[in-house]
Amino acid sequence: MKRVIIVGGGFAGLNAAKKLCRNPEIELTIIDRRNYHLFQPLLYQVAMAALNPAEIAQPIRSLFTGFRNVRVLQEEVIAVDRTAKEVQTLEGAYSYDYLILAVGVQHSYFGHEDWEEFAPGLKTLEQATEIRRRVLTAFERAEKTKNIQKQKQLLTFVIIGGGPTGVELAGAIGEMSRFTLAQDFNHIDPKLARVILIEAGPRILPSFSTKWASRVARDLEGIGVQVWTSSMVTDLDAEGVTVGEERVLCSTILWAAGVQAATLSQKLEVERDRQGRIIVAPDLSLPENPEIYICGDQSSFAHGVDQPLPGLAPIAMQQGRHAALNIQRTLKEQETLPFKYIDKGQMATIGRSRAIVEVGSLRLVGTFAWFLWLLIHIYYLLGFKNRFFVLIQWAWSYLSNSRGARLIVEKDWRFYKKKT
Amino acid sequence: MKRVIIVGGGFAGLNAAKKLCRNPEIELTIIDRRNYHLFQPLLYQVAMAALNPAEIAQPIRSLFTGFRNVRVLQEEVIAVDRTAKEVQTLEGAYSYDYLILAVGVQHSYFGHEDWEEFAPGLKTLEQATEIRRRVLTAFERAEKTKNIQKQKQLLTFVIIGGGPTGVELAGAIGEMSRFTLAQDFNHIDPKLARVILIEAGPRILPSFSTKWASRVARDLEGIGVQVWTSSMVTDLDAEGVTVGEERVLCSTILWAAGVQAATLSQKLEVERDRQGRIIVAPDLSLPENPEIYICGDQSSFAHGVDQPLPGLAPIAMQQGRHAALNIQRTLKEQETLPFKYIDKGQMATIGRSRAIVEVGSLRLVGTFAWFLWLLIHIYYLLGFKNRFFVLIQWAWSYLSNSRGARLIVEKDWRFYKKKT
Repeated sequence: MKRVIIVGGGFAGLNAAKKLCRNPEIELTIIDRRNYHLFQPLLYQVAMAALNPAEIAQPIRSLFTGFRNVRVLQEEVIAVDRTAKEVQTLEGAYSYDYLILAVGVQHSYFGHEDWEEFAPGLKTLEQATEIRRRVLTAFERAEKTKNIQKQKQLLTFVIIGGGPTGVELAGAIGEMSRFTLAQDFNHIDPKLARVILIEAGPRILPSFSTKWASRVARDLEGIGVQVWTSSMVTDLDAEGVTVGEERVLCSTILWAAGVQAATLSQKLEVERDRQGRIIVAPDLSLPENPEIYICGDQSSFAHGVDQPLPGLAPIAMQQGRHAALNIQRTLKEQETLPFKYIDKGQMATIGRSRAIVEVGSLRLVGTFAWFLWLLIHIYYLLGFKNRFFVLIQWAWSYLSNSRGARLIVEKDWRFYKKKT
Repeated sequence: MKRVIIVGGGFAGLNAAKKLCRNPEIELTIIDRRNYHLFQPLLYQVAMAALNPAEIAQPIRSLFTGFRNVRVLQEEVIAVDRTAKEVQTLEGAYSYDYLILAVGVQHSYFGHEDWEEFAPGLKTLEQATEIRRRVLTAFERAEKTKNIQKQKQLLTFVIIGGGPTGVELAGAIGEMSRFTLAQDFNHIDPKLARVILIEAGPRILPSFSTKWASRVARDLEGIGVQVWTSSMVTDLDAEGVTVGEERVLCSTILWAAGVQAATLSQKLEVERDRQGRIIVAPDLSLPENPEIYICGDQSSFAHGVDQPLPGLAPIAMQQGRHAALNIQRTLKEQETLPFKYIDKGQMATIGRSRAIVEVGSLRLVGTFAWFLWLLIHIYYLLGFKNRFFVLIQWAWSYLSNSRGARLIVEKDWRFYKKKT
């Protein structure tokens, strides 16, 4: 029995595990800090109260029911000892013959970690709940205040970062205030909410073609989102953001601006690219450790492509499967194969019924693209149950223009905390 | 325009509001700490990962869309000035002509508030999420440990309090370990989990008849729950509970033992019963302030009944509607009417397909009672959407024996918190 450890239950790790678990000669251990796999492309829908956390998350354990050769551990990996071939967690050490590292990335505040408190990012369910709490609370507080200045500030939402996540968040806040909340308030008009999408580069969606990106910018403006490009945020706090010379008062700031390698992968002493991602061999292994594979967002793959592959779910899935294939080949004493990315295109949604889809030279934008986006996302959602519920929930939201999950959940569960 | 303020968006407050909002001569203000109404009878299903928070909660604001005379405020009321006829919140003061107080109750640890940390109660969504986190984490940790003693401790669950909530929690943990989790773990057998229900009184479900309560106790034992009656918990901490002379090592303790008046109602200088509930006049008003009505769990109503009415949802609903009726009558210069409780019976579930229902002399137990319980609960769930989703979610859980919401969500959303 060969021991294979997969660290990380994201798209890369899970796709590797699904291949390897069927090989009875492999003793497979999956380690993740969380007990669930998160379908990150829909995380913004949780933040915007359209979906429940459980609808985009699946307990990892439940995906491997019945496989006696698979062990799922909820633990935090703190180090990899490449000489001893050991993964170290807070609770112990686990030996491996082969290791797949797929721990992803984390938000980067470019040295301003203290900004996180005022501008949460969107990588985890907890952050999504926090963003939902902030956005909904801003409307509640605006309804109560009699101070017009304060009301304006409360109804100003700033999203920093014009990539797909920033665009999707801005579009969703724009639509939520225009449609879902429009009738619920008597003292304010949620339609007056000001949503500002700030991008440091010259245009939003830099990975998409220029023409379509400007079409998206116009669509965003159509639902009340102001798009500020070539604008650099130089400071931010609880009262607002500073963009160059300009001070924008706002009470809600969301961060979608940058990522960096996860702490664990930062600790590895290996060659990296400018963004801190680990440079991998053509077969996805570490050049100096052929028994270690690096997959997903944390890997920098630059063989036979113009520039290193970006951090996207389809790439992570393909890499996970490829690493699994190469391990299986090695076990059969075959040579490993180089990884080849099959471009499945990229997509982003703008609000409730528009999307942009680019597959090779095919470009779609509008309602049809949105349906395509919907179908693909539902298809990839893991597990039949989730697909089914998400479909119903969406159908409902679409038909009724309501959002099912508009709860402001508090951070602390304790009642007697003040006394103790 | 007469100003009516309702404090509390629970069953009593909401039922009062639904009557009063239709009277255009009333300027109605509903104040609640939360932005949602919570369907508390199903809260244990959230704690046990069978339902999502949003499925049993409804934004209060969304229930009064279109009523221009209704204002919904998410604020914490800290005092009532009965002389100035003013409700004081952290953010301001609101004057009233009529006031309905329906703030409910909170957990009581009988002077041991420090126990809360180790034994969360079940009154809020945050507490439900915390309980879910603890129960699921216990199984995850048991899977990892090699220490048999520790494993036994992790798989021991203690529920303190043998009322309906305690019985429902114990039954649900028993069933979850026997059925839902049974196949998911390779190193432990979740079926070996030990669930102990501790009740200080001589029997569980004291409000039900003796015969049926013992039938429930047998049903619980059938799904692996040990029922300890006449057992007083004298101490508890992170490692276990002390029951008289006996020490029970366990890692999860849940509190369902007692309630007391909410802080706001404690502050009112009025006559109370032994449990701290406010004694009301036959028309539900305060004897010295006929413009103030006290409804729901916090009121002690003892007119024409053997003993003061207990804190149950149907009573709160009827009282809320009755207080609204009396305010409307006063506005028309009619006399107020005394409140008469129409007994709709009581019910509790034991696990996935059994319940106990008592309506007058009619008593039902078993699967048919469970269907009745299901129908009634779905019927009373506010809002069509929730009913529909809960029905589907339940149908699914019932057919597939799975639990859709098995996520362990962390308490803090910040990543950089350790550094700051």
